Amino acid sequence: MKGSLKIAGLGPGSDSLVTPEVTMALANATDIVGYIPYVARIPERSGLTLHASDNRVEVIRARQALELAANGKRVVVVSSGDPGVFAMAAAVFETLEKGPKEWLSLEIQVLPGITAMLAAAARVGAPLGHDFCVINLSDNLKPWSLIERRLRLAAEADFVMAFYNPRSNSRPTGFERTLKILCNTCQDTRPVIFARAVSTPEENIRVVTLPDATPDMADMRTVVIIGSSQTRIIAHKISPIVYTPRSAPI
Amino acid sequence: MKGSLKIAGLGPGSDSLVTPEVTMALANATDIVGYIPYVARIPERSGLTLHASDNRVEVIRARQALELAANGKRVVVVSSGDPGVFAMAAAVFETLEKGPKEWLSLEIQVLPGITAMLAAAARVGAPLGHDFCVINLSDNLKPWSLIERRLRLAAEADFVMAFYNPRSNSRPTGFERTLKILCNTCQDTRPVIFARAVSTPEENIRVVTLPDATPDMADMRTVVIIGSSQTRIIAHKISPIVYTPRSAPI
Repeated sequence: MKGSLKIAGLGPGSDSLVTPEVTMALANATDIVGYIPYVARIPERSGLTLHASDNRVEVIRARQALELAANGKRVVVVSSGDPGVFAMAAAVFETLEKGPKEWLSLEIQVLPGITAMLAAAARVGAPLGHDFCVINLSDNLKPWSLIERRLRLAAEADFVMAFYNPRSNSRPTGFERTLKILCNTCQDTRPVIFARAVSTPEENIRVVTLPDATPDMADMRTVVIIGSSQTRIIAHKISPIVYTPRSAPI
Repeated sequence: MKGSLKIAGLGPGSDSLVTPEVTMALANATDIVGYIPYVARIPERSGLTLHASDNRVEVIRARQALELAANGKRVVVVSSGDPGVFAMAAAVFETLEKGPKEWLSLEIQVLPGITAMLAAAARVGAPLGHDFCVINLSDNLKPWSLIERRLRLAAEADFVMAFYNPRSNSRPTGFERTLKILCNTCQDTRPVIFARAVSTPEENIRVVTLPDATPDMADMRTVVIIGSSQTRIIAHKISPIVYTPRSAPI
């Protein structure tokens, strides 16, 4: 039996957001590889080995998955959200490129998932209804100066912006600097959406305008979406609706 | 019985990419509203009325859906991909904001879906593994000058770029101009992915480098992804793998 490797997106948290394609891959797997909280979502069953590992060991995890597949296993690497958006897929291909040539004959497939910004956007309306950009605010693997440059150019382009990994205990200041840059370059009316742990029991959504956004509103489980100059808020008795119109003025 | 309106994403084409949440909403609906080819994906059943309408009548369609919901129906507006990304959700909220106040008491929910760029990216590897932007290349609802400005700023920011609606019969020249701008601002090595009708029987994927990309490679069913300066191609006997590393050099 030839081994295979699927890199699958589990979506933001709820099983109702897992695609049938991913569910079937999990059912046919012999080995599941991933970060502890994601592997914890997979029910144990006979014939299935769960390999949970800690955060920040993406390359070690990728190598483990490729080696298991090379040994004939049907491996599924699980990611939260979509595996291709700031998740495990890039780490697997980085490791594949540097690894032994035999790995290139493995059957490798990426199975898309609902990435956090799509679930967050859906909860508040349609803030991503017009051109947008997506930035990973973690400077673990890139210089902070590059993030700042992208923020300024994105503001100049009047993109809606979605931020992943806005803030963690080891990176407490980057998001504060991000908010300062945006306050200095964008109008006060811009909506800011803090969407934490969407579709899980811990879900929490806040909508404020830019001057009222504070760093403590975000953590590692939060996706932040900043509206463009055109993004609108509709007042609503339960919770405000935020959307970006399809059209832009001349 | 109180009416409700769900705006649901059907994903790029295959039923294996439709979330259980959307499948359940469709099963409980009394009325389905949407563009002809998307409504055609919904099987007929007793108790369900299908309302298919043509392209470019998004606001009329949104009003129809809101009116049906206001009359007590359980309405699902179907979009391809994700409803919040260049699809029906923004049109519904634009119409809601301009409509009668009673509409604000309707239960309205957006159900996310696998948007085309995620499915396209998954097919070739992980081109969206680093910061990226997403631009609708149609100038039906915004000036072309704004699109050009965003392209230049996105190139300056070294974003990976995903383009929706790159080219249609009524807009034959915009994508040609896009390629010219990118050829003048980006290195020749940048990979360009043309992903047409992903996950349908008509699926077609091409990977070229920027100087070899030609306008006729795209149509309205194509998503185009342009790599950043860091995006890499791994040669492969079946089809090349394209990914953008998580890290960026200092």
